Formats: sequence, C-alpha cells, structure tokens
Amino acid sequence: MNVAQLIGRKRDGAELSGDEIRAFLGGYTRGEIPDYQVSALLMAVFFRGMSDAELDAWTDAMIRSGVTLDLSALPGPKIDKHSTGGVGDKVSLPLAPIAAACGVRVPMISGRGLGHTGGTLDKLESIPGMDVKVDKARFLRVLDDTGLVFAGQTADICPADRKLYALRDVTGTVESIPLISSSIMSKKLAEGIDGLVLDIKVGSGAFMKDLERARLLARTMIRIGTGRGIKVKAVLTRMEQPLGLACGNGVETAEGIEVLHGRGPEDLREAVLHLTAWMLVLGGVRGDVEGAKALCLEKIRGGEALDRMRRVVAAQGGDARVVDDPGLLPAGKHRATLAAPESGWVARIDAFTIGMACIDLGAGRARAEDGVDPGAGMLLAAKVGARVEKGAPLATLMSGDGARLAPALARAAGAYAISPSPVAPEGSLIIEEL
Amino acid sequence: MNVAQLIGRKRDGAELSGDEIRAFLGGYTRGEIPDYQVSALLMAVFFRGMSDAELDAWTDAMIRSGVTLDLSALPGPKIDKHSTGGVGDKVSLPLAPIAAACGVRVPMISGRGLGHTGGTLDKLESIPGMDVKVDKARFLRVLDDTGLVFAGQTADICPADRKLYALRDVTGTVESIPLISSSIMSKKLAEGIDGLVLDIKVGSGAFMKDLERARLLARTMIRIGTGRGIKVKAVLTRMEQPLGLACGNGVETAEGIEVLHGRGPEDLREAVLHLTAWMLVLGGVRGDVEGAKALCLEKIRGGEALDRMRRVVAAQGGDARVVDDPGLLPAGKHRATLAAPESGWVARIDAFTIGMACIDLGAGRARAEDGVDPGAGMLLAAKVGARVEKGAPLATLMSGDGARLAPALARAAGAYAISPSPVAPEGSLIIEEL
Repeated sequence: MNVAQLIGRKRDGAELSGDEIRAFLGGYTRGEIPDYQVSALLMAVFFRGMSDAELDAWTDAMIRSGVTLDLSALPGPKIDKHSTGGVGDKVSLPLAPIAAACGVRVPMISGRGLGHTGGTLDKLESIPGMDVKVDKARFLRVLDDTGLVFAGQTADICPADRKLYALRDVTGTVESIPLISSSIMSKKLAEGIDGLVLDIKVGSGAFMKDLERARLLARTMIRIGTGRGIKVKAVLTRMEQPLGLACGNGVETAEGIEVLHGRGPEDLREAVLHLTAWMLVLGGVRGDVEGAKALCLEKIRGGEALDRMRRVVAAQGGDARVVDDPGLLPAGKHRATLAAPESGWVARIDAFTIGMACIDLGAGRARAEDGVDPGAGMLLAAKVGARVEKGAPLATLMSGDGARLAPALARAAGAYAISPSPVAPEGSLIIEEL
Repeated sequence: MNVAQLIGRKRDGAELSGDEIRAFLGGYTRGEIPDYQVSALLMAVFFRGMSDAELDAWTDAMIRSGVTLDLSALPGPKIDKHSTGGVGDKVSLPLAPIAAACGVRVPMISGRGLGHTGGTLDKLESIPGMDVKVDKARFLRVLDDTGLVFAGQTADICPADRKLYALRDVTGTVESIPLISSSIMSKKLAEGIDGLVLDIKVGSGAFMKDLERARLLARTMIRIGTGRGIKVKAVLTRMEQPLGLACGNGVETAEGIEVLHGRGPEDLREAVLHLTAWMLVLGGVRGDVEGAKALCLEKIRGGEALDRMRRVVAAQGGDARVVDDPGLLPAGKHRATLAAPESGWVARIDAFTIGMACIDLGAGRARAEDGVDPGAGMLLAAKVGARVEKGAPLATLMSGDGARLAPALARAAGAYAISPSPVAPEGSLIIEEL
C-alpha cells in the first residue's frame, strides 16, 4: 500500500476500498503508519466526507482494532444511551438505574469532560469511593448483579479510536460528521449492546450548533448502527441554556439523584424520562413511549430506581449514603453570588459560556491530563423566562480555590442577557426524533 | 499560539496573519511543531488555497528559515531560469553558458530528478569529475570567473522548504499551487538574483496537466517575485512528447552540448534560444526577444558559449573534453531497439510513460536515496508527425544493466500511437508568455 497515493486519491474525491481502509487503520494502530500521514488523510476526510461504504469499513476497522464485549450470556435487552455532550447534562446518572429498574440492562461506558462539557465519569467520581475503572470481569458481575454498570472505556476497546481521537484533537480534524459518528458508534458497538438511544444536543452549548448538522450526525449514526444489527433511536434536544440548575461534578450528581427521588428541575426530568422511555421501547419492555414513561415514573415512585442506584454505587465501592443524603457530596466552600445587573426577564443563559466558567472554577479540564475539583461548579437560581429583580441572585458559584471565583464570575456574567420585557420559557427540550 | 486552533481556522476558510504564519513555519523549522500538525495544515491549504498576503508571508518565512546569498558585489545582472520539470528537458545545460557569454550572470541552483522527470544535477554529474556540491565561497568564485555556476541547493538555504517538501511528498500535499509556488520562489529568491525566467511545462509529461492551472501557477509565481523586487517572466511550453531526442543523463548532456555547437533537435534549440533570450531581456542586455535571440546565435556561432561551458566544467572539476567530444559521456552498453509495430505516422509519444521507462532503465530514482545510472536512457529516432515503416526503429534504449531492458521496452511501447494517416508535427513549443 502506497499511503501517499491513498491520501492523494481520497483528497481528489475517490472512494477508498474496504481493504484499503482496514489496512490503513490497522497499520496506524500497529504504529506502522505515522501520525503525519494519518492527520493529512483526516483533513482530506474533513473536506471530502466518506461514502456509506467507506464509513462502514472505517467503523468496522476501529471495532476490530481491539476487543469486543459479549453480553449474550446475560438475560434481557442490553441498551445504552449516548449524549453528544452538553452543559449540565447529568441525564445518565438517573437514567441508568431507572432503566435497570424497568428491566433493561445498561452497560454504560462513559467518558470524561471534554472542552466546555462535563463527563459522566467525572460526575460519578464525586461520590466518595466510587470506582469507574472496572475490569471486564467486574464489569460483567456488576451488570449481572445490579442491572447496570458505570464504567470508563478500557484500553483494549477500540484502541484505533483512542489514537485517532488524540490526533484529531491537535490537528483541527474533530468537527467531521463521519469521524465523529465512527468514533462514537465503534465504541458503542464494541460494548455488545442490542440497542442505543442517542441524545444529540443542538445549540450554543453543544458541539452541533445547527439543526441540519445535528440531523446529519443522527442519521449517520443510525445508519451505522442499524447496518450492524442494533436498534438505534436518536433524539435531538435543545442545548442553549444549561440542562437543569446544577453545573459541576458534585452538584450535578446531587441533582441527578434528586430525579430518582421524584424531584428535580422540570427540564431535566423531561429529558431523563423521555430518553429512558426510548431505551425501554428499544428493549421491548414497552411498546410505546408514553407507556414506558409511566413505567419509569412507577419505578421512581416505588423506590426501585433509587434502590438500583444504591446497589450500583455500593457495588463499585462508592458511599451509597449519598443516594439518600446528596448533601454528603462535595460542594466548594468558597462561594460567590452572581447578581442580576438590572431587573427584567432572563432572556439568555449561554450554555457554552457557563461551561467555560465552570472550567474556570476547576470543574473541568484545560488539558486532558488535568484533574478536576469535584466541589467546583454553579447552581443557577433562575432559568430563561424567569423574572429577576436587580441585585437578586442569578447563580451561586463554588470552588475549592477562592482565587478562581473572580474570573469565573466575570465570565459567567457574560452568559446572561436580561430583557426589560417578558420572555417565554424555552418549552419542550425535545426538538425532534429520528 | 494554539496550533490546533490555527489549523481549524485555516480549515474553515479564515485568513492567517503574517505573524501566525511566521511563528508556525519558524516553530516547524526549529522542531517545535510536529509533522502531524503541519501535514494537517498543508491539506487544509490544499483545499482552501492561500490569500496573496498569506502566500507572501509563507514565502518570506521560508526564505528567513535559512541564509540568503548576496551577489551584489558581482557586476552585471544576475538572472536564473527555472523549469517546473519535464521529460528530456536539458535546456539549462546550453542555456546557462549562452546567457553567460551574452553578459548575464547565471547563478544556477538546480535539483535532482523527481518522479518521472530528470534533474539538471543528475545530468551534469554524468560529466566525469563534475562536482555540483560547491560551497558558498566556490560558488561565488566560479560565478565570478566564468559568469555561471551549476550547483545544488545547500542545506542552509530554505531549510523549512526542505522539511516541508519531504513531508508533502508522503502526505498527498504536493499538488497545491501556493505550496508549489512558495517552494520554488523561496529558493530562487534566496539566491539573490535580479530576474528569473520560468519555464512552466504543460501537458501529459508535466506536473501541470492543464493550461488553466499552469497559468495560475505562472501568475502566482510572478506576483511573489515582482512583489519582492525581482523581474519574472513566465513562458508556458508544451510537454506532451519528450523535448529533443535524448532522455537520460549522459545522452541528454550530450544533446545539450550539441546545441552549443549550433546543432541539435529543432524543438530543443527553439526552447533554449527563447528562454535564454528572455534572460537577456530581463537583464537589460537587449531590449527585445528577437534581438536577444540574434545575440545568442552570434555567441553560439562565435564559440564563446562553448568556451563558457568548457570553463565552467573545468572550474567545477569536470572533464572539459566532453564539450568537444560528447562521445566521452556515458552511454549504456546494453541496448535494445523499440521497433514500429506498423507503418504509419507517429501520433503520440507520451512523455510521462517515456520518463517512467527511463526510470526502469536506471536513469531516475524510485526513491530519493537511490543513485542513478548515468548511461541509462533512450534516444528517440522519430518524433510526433514522422513517417515510420513497420519494423523501423522508434527509439534505442540503453542501460548499464541488461536485465532492465525488457520491462522498459514493454513500458516504452505503450507510449506510442501510430496513425494510418498523416499527423502534423507539434509546431511551436511556446504556448504563451506571461
């Protein structure tokens, strides 16, 4: 294989064969093809896209680069949910135990915070003792015992994706629909699931800023998944302002647990119920979304969902008392209040800016190797549409490091727009379903 | 500087600032920016192009990455010629001594064979003893003594270009007008010349296959050069069949010397006279091309051009007897004749295929580190438009290695088309001038 010629052909719009793609990604994973040739090809893919056949071969080669899980020995449907990432998105925390309580097995493999968005693993690790680095044997045991498991990706799943992702991050080749789709779907398909619900965030706080690209991403991932025999449902959800009121690891975990208690902000409850309901439908537990939502509410009211959360936290070494007393979760002792600069109605809370302010506070990473402060974050006091009086709190900022408050406060202030006339609340989070 | 963001901005069509480009290429030359980020940017440049300001900054940064020559102490105009590369293109060999005999100083820095095209340095090295690896002091002394010098690029001129060129070669980013233009012009501008004649080859045997791209390349290089205060003339010349009759290092050197004797194939003589004449016009030696051509012919007839060739070969350690006895030049002892498969008129001699057949014979390089066989090559017996009888020779193939003849013969046969009806000769080589 002449790699330079292969790059040149892709650059000029030719379609690469499945054999070429497998040889290319295989050679890269084994270290035989250098980064500088791969980054050039990735940039050509950014401009030229991929045909369906190319993308299928690319995804297949990523899956084959590592091991795959076989969950067929476990009874019941195995369904996961993946979010493309937003601000305040703690949906996975209540969703997984609710789904498990309803009879779906949830082998949830999540990531860490990326850019301005938080990560489920970072949120879970705010629970004292909680261990998300579980090996394969423990993964299967916890999933068998509790019906769900919260884990990070292990090194042996899709190693090609790990190398590619790190390279894309530093070569300006992240924002490519085929590269994003294959990265997500290869990891999910390697989990051995039967179905997948995709939460595609759209808006200023999402990686997909416009609806057309979000639809294209959804359709691309649906095609990849169904082509490999799994059920895929994509829900496009609004991500202009943060989801719920809490942003940051400890406070988001607490808010997620609130939903299991039948409480919590309305938009968050809507997202959790809707996405969980689709997991039940894909898993065949209920035939329609409304019936599935009713079952979810029943399992919340009856305490079974909460019980699943206690059990999975305990099974992964965490302090299960946080499930009944979220006040035990970390919350930064240095605090500051962002006050409304004038009276009026909240017209905008830019999620991207709030996400960056949370990084300022220590809740996220500026670099991949950085740690996070589990107590850092923000609690919003009002969302879009709320009436606020001048000087009243818009949000409380928290950090373990008092010096971080002032820059975060300045940044967060820029996220808000206050209107002198009434503003309607956002309405339903759900934009459309594919 | 965040390099990933800079790549992303170029990818999305933003214009990079001069400071960003200088920091990027400076960082690359110093080894601070890795190849994989540079290749991604190069591919983005391939798709997005460069603005005039970007290209000027890029060229400037390449020049500043190394040393520049100062030829101002030498009297007279310093003019060079550059060809974008073709098959059988030995123009530089007679051109430089003719121009020098006419009063122009020619500091000729040339390259080696690349792909299917030959290189002036490889041709010169077929002269026994000829040394083209001259240091700066010897370069200036030979140029001062003889009016011309034939040299290879030294490591300290445009090191950024050397790194970039090697990277482009393996990452499918060679065929980009701004990258080609800046690569050529940075090296020529670093020579300290007053004027430059560009021979832009167009056709199947050239890197530029179509006229529009050749024109764009010409205009781009003219703009870069005139913007930095040198005179630039671009001549677009046909490269469908090989130039002249000889292809290969020793035989091309012999054919180039024939022109200095007032002999040689008509198309080669036309190219040499036309391009040399433009050097004289740029240098102010004559006011128009026709007058300049007349002066060139006078210096050929009077033997002054031949004398310059003798002197420069001797000054660079070569055996100057070859100038009067080209039979002393190497010519492979293993020979085969390519016979016309039928009677008719030669309709096509595909230069690219002939170039590749010469590589089969050992005249060029499959890899940059390979050596060349100075006696390998082909001598054409007929050009496009000639009447040939079945079985009559179309060309003689030569090599130092008899085993190379059969595959080269098979390949060369594919270069020819014989027509049953008369075919017009190609006519003037000169397509247009810019």
